Amino acid sequence: MSESESFQTIQEIGLKGLIEKITAFDGYKNPRVKQSIGDDAAVVEEGDDSLSLLSSDTYVEGVDFDPVYTPFRHLGYKILSAGISDIYAMNGKAEAVLINLALPNRMSVEMIERLYEGLYSAAKEHEVEIAGGDLKANHANLVVGISVYGKVEKDKVTYRSGANEGDAICVTGDLGGALAGLRILMREKKHWEEHGDENIQPDLADYQFVVQRQLVPKARKDLIDTLAKKGVVPTSMIDITKGLVNEVSEISKASGHGAYIYQATLPIAIESRQVADEMEEDVDRYALYGGEDLELMFTLPEKKVEEFVNHFDDFVVIGRMVPKEEGLKMQTAEGDVISFDDMS
Amino acid sequence: MSESESFQTIQEIGLKGLIEKITAFDGYKNPRVKQSIGDDAAVVEEGDDSLSLLSSDTYVEGVDFDPVYTPFRHLGYKILSAGISDIYAMNGKAEAVLINLALPNRMSVEMIERLYEGLYSAAKEHEVEIAGGDLKANHANLVVGISVYGKVEKDKVTYRSGANEGDAICVTGDLGGALAGLRILMREKKHWEEHGDENIQPDLADYQFVVQRQLVPKARKDLIDTLAKKGVVPTSMIDITKGLVNEVSEISKASGHGAYIYQATLPIAIESRQVADEMEEDVDRYALYGGEDLELMFTLPEKKVEEFVNHFDDFVVIGRMVPKEEGLKMQTAEGDVISFDDMS
Repeated sequence: MSESESFQTIQEIGLKGLIEKITAFDGYKNPRVKQSIGDDAAVVEEGDDSLSLLSSDTYVEGVDFDPVYTPFRHLGYKILSAGISDIYAMNGKAEAVLINLALPNRMSVEMIERLYEGLYSAAKEHEVEIAGGDLKANHANLVVGISVYGKVEKDKVTYRSGANEGDAICVTGDLGGALAGLRILMREKKHWEEHGDENIQPDLADYQFVVQRQLVPKARKDLIDTLAKKGVVPTSMIDITKGLVNEVSEISKASGHGAYIYQATLPIAIESRQVADEMEEDVDRYALYGGEDLELMFTLPEKKVEEFVNHFDDFVVIGRMVPKEEGLKMQTAEGDVISFDDMS
Repeated sequence: MSESESFQTIQEIGLKGLIEKITAFDGYKNPRVKQSIGDDAAVVEEGDDSLSLLSSDTYVEGVDFDPVYTPFRHLGYKILSAGISDIYAMNGKAEAVLINLALPNRMSVEMIERLYEGLYSAAKEHEVEIAGGDLKANHANLVVGISVYGKVEKDKVTYRSGANEGDAICVTGDLGGALAGLRILMREKKHWEEHGDENIQPDLADYQFVVQRQLVPKARKDLIDTLAKKGVVPTSMIDITKGLVNEVSEISKASGHGAYIYQATLPIAIESRQVADEMEEDVDRYALYGGEDLELMFTLPEKKVEEFVNHFDDFVVIGRMVPKEEGLKMQTAEGDVISFDDMS
């Protein structure tokens, strides 16, 4: 690197720009690594008919979660569920999880115990063992690291790249609920900051559905179990953590196709709609850009969809894969066709 | 948990106390997980004759490293080497690594590029692929998370628990060098803080050996490669990251034996000794309590040691495993016998 190189802040090029820079390094390639950066998990070939799946993530206090409105038991549950969801997105089963904490002294023992209660609760639900990790001190904020190890048979793995032209794009459950929940929690926090103790326990009963979607989202074990039982393998799959628009773009980019989405088909819960109305916001934007729902998006040939819906009914078809030249488009409820490029 | 439970800070019970609390949870057990918390890596059984190894760690700016005297290229190299070292301690080979960064905006793009250069450099040396991870923003300090995935054949895995009574306790390379290097770097930092820019570039040439031991320690690939080539399997192994006294205690606890160490045999480099003299400190304490050397400690029946030393000569025998009742003891250079309990 030349001496004349000018100092460049991360802010200037953004995290995406930085990721591009570091993935361009010419690193050691292991022939057993079948999928590296660019999918929900890394994939390593084994001696038998199985593949190993590796995924990891970091959760930063003040960035990824706000302790003001996040009970630590819920935080643990959510972190583990989101980790498992990455393995489900490869059509795999999680086997073991490692948890690493960097924790400030000001935290109470009880808070960390609650965090682990949540982690262990989700681990039980998804039949995965918490098999290691470490605790370290941090003088700043709480940082939680999670590594997930999973397995999948070679003929069942679902990469983002596998989607074919004509495949139906399917989405489980409903979208935008987690973001609707976040809106409510942020409003309560603001209220609390402005009015203080006099009104400390906000009544969230009316918003239970969306708040739970934000705080304790469920990873879709049920879909993966049903796929396995019925011998159905999606052509591609991804979990919805950064919003539908992002995930459709990822599947399209990886598979080399375009996508055509029907806005009217977006699955949105009535409770999410009510929150958006109250906030005077567009609920479709919640569904398109809200992440963290931990729903799964997958593609299947249309004929297989007709068959599979008899066994699993908590999903809808929101569009289909089209030739690359047609790009990424959405047909609005009014019948207009807009490009993803114009959606922001 | 009862309402009357009193608030307890982490400081009160310490990280060790907290680890005891959270490992006592009654979590889901996966029968394929052969080794959970309590060794250098978690071990998962595969369908064939191999085992999968999982290890993860977190490095916190201001706690685990000080950017004032840690070039980021070195930091990357060290973090990856330490991660790989955990896999070596199981007698395994690392296959893939995931890196997660939580990074503050104030960092420059160049710093992160240097960090990755170091990571990729160590990855090449150890023939492991950086296969994923993520970057996130942090408003506080830099936190680096690493997850390492490795493999080992079932009949070659070395657990801490495998040491037998009478086995020789062996240590590669030399001990205390990393701590000696840290002493020098901390002295330079203090000097710089007191005298400022006028003398900004300290001359560390005289201390190159120990400074390199601190900044760019080598994980002992050479030992693992030689063991494999010669068909020798240690009865137990651990990497020395928290200091010899700690690692001897871990092997003893896990295997259910005692240990007897000869202080005179501790391998200490002349350069480390010079630093200790200069600081008016006891170099044996560096060797006993200094970690981060990334050397390996392993146990072998004495007969096998005599044979193995013909193939690999960068190790020494520092003691042997004894019956549990004899506890953990060290014979000093003067011939006194002291208990580990009295060493602090």
